[in-house]
Amino acid sequence: MEKKDFLYEGKAKQIYSTDDENYVIIHYKDDATAGNGEKKGSIKDKGIINNQITALLFTRLEEKGIRTHFKEKLNDRDQLCEKVKIFPLEVIVRNIITGSMSKRLGVKEGTKPENTILEICYKNDEYGDPLINDHHAVALGLATYDELKKIYEITLKINDFLKELFDKEGIILVDFKIEFGKNSKGEILLADEITPDTCRLWDKETGKKLDKDRFRQDLGGIEEAYIEILKRLEA
Amino acid sequence: MEKKDFLYEGKAKQIYSTDDENYVIIHYKDDATAGNGEKKGSIKDKGIINNQITALLFTRLEEKGIRTHFKEKLNDRDQLCEKVKIFPLEVIVRNIITGSMSKRLGVKEGTKPENTILEICYKNDEYGDPLINDHHAVALGLATYDELKKIYEITLKINDFLKELFDKEGIILVDFKIEFGKNSKGEILLADEITPDTCRLWDKETGKKLDKDRFRQDLGGIEEAYIEILKRLEA
Ligand SMILES: Nc1ncnc2c1ncn2[C@@H]1O[C@H](COP(=O)(O)OP(=O)(O)O)[C@@H](O)[C@H]1O
Ligand SMILES: Nc1ncnc2c1ncn2[C@@H]1O[C@H](COP(=O)(O)OP(=O)(O)O)[C@@H](O)[C@H]1O
Ligand SMILES: [Mg+2]
Ligand SMILES: [Mg+2]
Repeated sequence: MEKKDFLYEGKAKQIYSTDDENYVIIHYKDDATAGNGEKKGSIKDKGIINNQITALLFTRLEEKGIRTHFKEKLNDRDQLCEKVKIFPLEVIVRNIITGSMSKRLGVKEGTKPENTILEICYKNDEYGDPLINDHHAVALGLATYDELKKIYEITLKINDFLKELFDKEGIILVDFKIEFGKNSKGEILLADEITPDTCRLWDKETGKKLDKDRFRQDLGGIEEAYIEILKRLEA
Repeated sequence: MEKKDFLYEGKAKQIYSTDDENYVIIHYKDDATAGNGEKKGSIKDKGIINNQITALLFTRLEEKGIRTHFKEKLNDRDQLCEKVKIFPLEVIVRNIITGSMSKRLGVKEGTKPENTILEICYKNDEYGDPLINDHHAVALGLATYDELKKIYEITLKINDFLKELFDKEGIILVDFKIEFGKNSKGEILLADEITPDTCRLWDKETGKKLDKDRFRQDLGGIEEAYIEILKRLEA
C-alpha cells in the first residue's frame, strides 16, 4: 500500500492515509523532543531504528496474542498499521522508580517497588500530559471505566512479556509508555510505538542507559544506544 | 478527660495525649493557610466554629453507621477523639469540578461530571501534597490495595450522606477532603475534620462561596460564611 494524504504528525512520526480507510502508513522521523517539547533536536537515523524496533516488538507481541495496530514494515521509515482512534492517554508502567515519579514523590532513583506501578496521563501537550486517575479520565470522556480496565489488563500482559524479552538480552525494562486506540470495529489495540524513545532501558551489567535519557540528559552516544537495543533484540 | 502532653500540631489543629493511650484531645486553632502554606493568616473564631461543625457532622455520620474517630466535644475548641495512625493520604471527592482539577486539566470551573471523582494525594507538605494513584500509594507504603478499597467504599458513603445533608440546607457540596486513620485495633476510621476549611460549599440559590475559598481568594466575609454553614446545619 502507498501513502495517500498526509493526515497529521506528532513529535516523532507522521501519519498518512492509504487507499484503505482502515489503514494508515506511519512514517518514523529523526526528530527528538524532551521535557514536553522544551528541548528539541534530532537523533541521526532514529526513525529508521525505531521503525525496526517497533516492527520487531509488535510482531512478537502479536505472536503472544496481544492485539496491535501493526501490519507490516514497508521500508526503512514506514510501516503499515491499522488506523485507530487513539485514547488520549499515556499509559505508563514502572518496574523501577525513576524520572518524574522520583521527582514528584521524593522516591530515590532506582527504587524497586514490590508492586508494578501503572499510571495514566492525559495526552495533552498544552497541559503538560498531567497525571490523572480513572475518575478523571472518565469525567473528561477519554475512556470508560470498562475500557480502562481492559487497557490495564493488556498493559500488564505487555509488561510481563517485554520485561522477560529484554531481560534475556541483558536489559532491564525500567519503565515505558504505551498508547492504545480503537479500530473501526471498536476493538482496543496497542498502537503507536515501543522504542528507546518510549522506554527506559538499562544494561543489566553496567547500568548504562540505552534510551532517550541519553538525549534528555546530554549523555552522548545516543544513536549507538538505540542501535545497541536493536542489535540485542535481533540477536 | 484532660489534656496531658502536647503531641504535635498541624496548620489548623493541635493534638494532645490523654490519660488513655487510645484517645487524644484535638484542639481547633484559628490559623488558616492556603496554597500549601504560602498564604498564612487567621480567621476569627474559626477554631470554635470548626470544632462545632466537625462534632455535628461526625455525630450524624456515626448515626448513619460510619465509623469515625469522634467521641465527644469537650469545650469550645477541644474534642475527644480516638487516637489513630493517620494514612498519609488526602482523600478528595469532587461532585463538581473546580480548583486544582480545573487548572491542571483545563476543565471549565463548575463542570458537573457524570461520575463521582475520587482522588488521593500524598499528604506531604515538602512535595506539595501531590496527586497519586493506588499503585503509588502502595509502592510508597502509605496503604495496601485492600485498605484503599475500603477507604473508597467509606468515602462514597460519606459523600452520599453529606451531599444530601447539605442539599437539604440549600448548600451544594462541591468537593471535600477527608483523612482516614487506623486505631489500635486496626480498624479504619474517618479522622481529622470536615469543615468549611476542607469542603467547597456553594449556596444553591446564589452560588455564594461559603468556605475557605473566601480566604484563598480574599473575598471577605469569611467568618460570616463559616457561621452561616454552622447555623444551617444546626437548623
Ligand atoms: N494506528 C494509529 N492510528 C492513528 N494514529 C496513530 C496510530 N498510532 C499512533 N498514532 C498517533 O500518531 C501521532 C503521531 O505520533 P508521535 O509523533 O509519536 O506523536 P506525539 O508527539 O503525540 O508523541 C500521535 O498522536 C499518535 O497517538
Ligand atoms: N484522631 C487522630 N489521631 C491522631 N492524629 C490525628 C487525628 N485526627 C487528625 N490527626 C492529625 O492531626 C494533625 C493536625 O491536623 P491539622 O492541623 O489539620 O494538620 P495539617 O496541617 O496536616 O492539615 C494532622 O496530621 C492530622 O492528620
Ligand atoms: Mg509519541
Ligand atoms: Mg488539616
